[in-house]
Amino acid sequence: MPHIQLADDLPGIRGAMAFRPETAKPLNELVEVLMRGPNSLMRAERELIATYVSYLNDCYYCQMSHGAIAAANLSGDEELVKRVKADFQHADISDKLKALLVIASKVQKGGKHVTADDVTAARNLGATGLEIHDAVLISAAFCMYNRYVDGLGTVQPRDEASYRERGKRVARDGYVTVSQEYLATHPVAR
Amino acid sequence: MPHIQLADDLPGIRGAMAFRPETAKPLNELVEVLMRGPNSLMRAERELIATYVSYLNDCYYCQMSHGAIAAANLSGDEELVKRVKADFQHADISDKLKALLVIASKVQKGGKHVTADDVTAARNLGATGLEIHDAVLISAAFCMYNRYVDGLGTVQPRDEASYRERGKRVARDGYVTVSQEYLATHPVAR
Repeated sequence: MPHIQLADDLPGIRGAMAFRPETAKPLNELVEVLMRGPNSLMRAERELIATYVSYLNDCYYCQMSHGAIAAANLSGDEELVKRVKADFQHADISDKLKALLVIASKVQKGGKHVTADDVTAARNLGATGLEIHDAVLISAAFCMYNRYVDGLGTVQPRDEASYRERGKRVARDGYVTVSQEYLATHPVAR
Repeated sequence: MPHIQLADDLPGIRGAMAFRPETAKPLNELVEVLMRGPNSLMRAERELIATYVSYLNDCYYCQMSHGAIAAANLSGDEELVKRVKADFQHADISDKLKALLVIASKVQKGGKHVTADDVTAARNLGATGLEIHDAVLISAAFCMYNRYVDGLGTVQPRDEASYRERGKRVARDGYVTVSQEYLATHPVAR
């Protein structure tokens, strides 16, 4: 049961966002620009970083949600998403993305864990300053979203099909658009 | 030295924000509504939560910046800010704020550390659902800001006077207004 009164039909972060639309707005705008804004990193690559960090933080709702969005951006390749979580160094992804996942995993532990060598390794594999910045901020941001979702004790359904369907919708329409729909149908009653 | 090319004259998160104004916008809007928006928690109380979490995450820039903003909201009482960091259970703050600091410290470790008993204790001391929500999200958000600031290896000056002066400015004018000033004078050159 959630620690505060959240809408029964809105699992995970959606219930928290409907409870507090004032903070939902910048939270959705941040994830929209990070995961879907113009970028030399593909959307699937950014979603894989978010999924991996959510996995490290053991947030079921976030790793399932963003894993599904990643898969939707990979023509449905759920096996690749699982492989990245289990052992990204041997997954079929670019060496540059592997180096960015190393940086993201250091940020998940704490910002000071990132070393100059980690960054040099990523640069030598072609990562730009912007890509390194975004790997750091995506990891940091999911350390927030994961704590928000778990810290409120939100409901996190276990049926994978629901995440798959929703992942396709978010991959198609984006975070802000999808959030505006459920915020409009759930007036704040706190 | 920062891990990516940041403006020499913008320490801490300011250099990162000038590097990436697209993400700076929602990051500033989030901290503005959390720390300064309409709320039954005083601004000083919210800044004390942010300062304490930044202290737990060992982020010098953030604990000094938000500690200074907290002090500015407390008629300059820097001793209280130091006391909260060192031993908040014996600081001269309300029992309700102590219970919210307990919740914030659990979120800093990871969202799942928050227990129903932690939340009940806060409610029994008068905390509302919104105050509990905000304690969780403030802590989660500073787990992001702290990782962002340290993960990029930003410059973090050691002179306390500069934080004090800036804290007064932000306490008076707000995060969004102050950020718009330095973003305007630092066009993106990446």
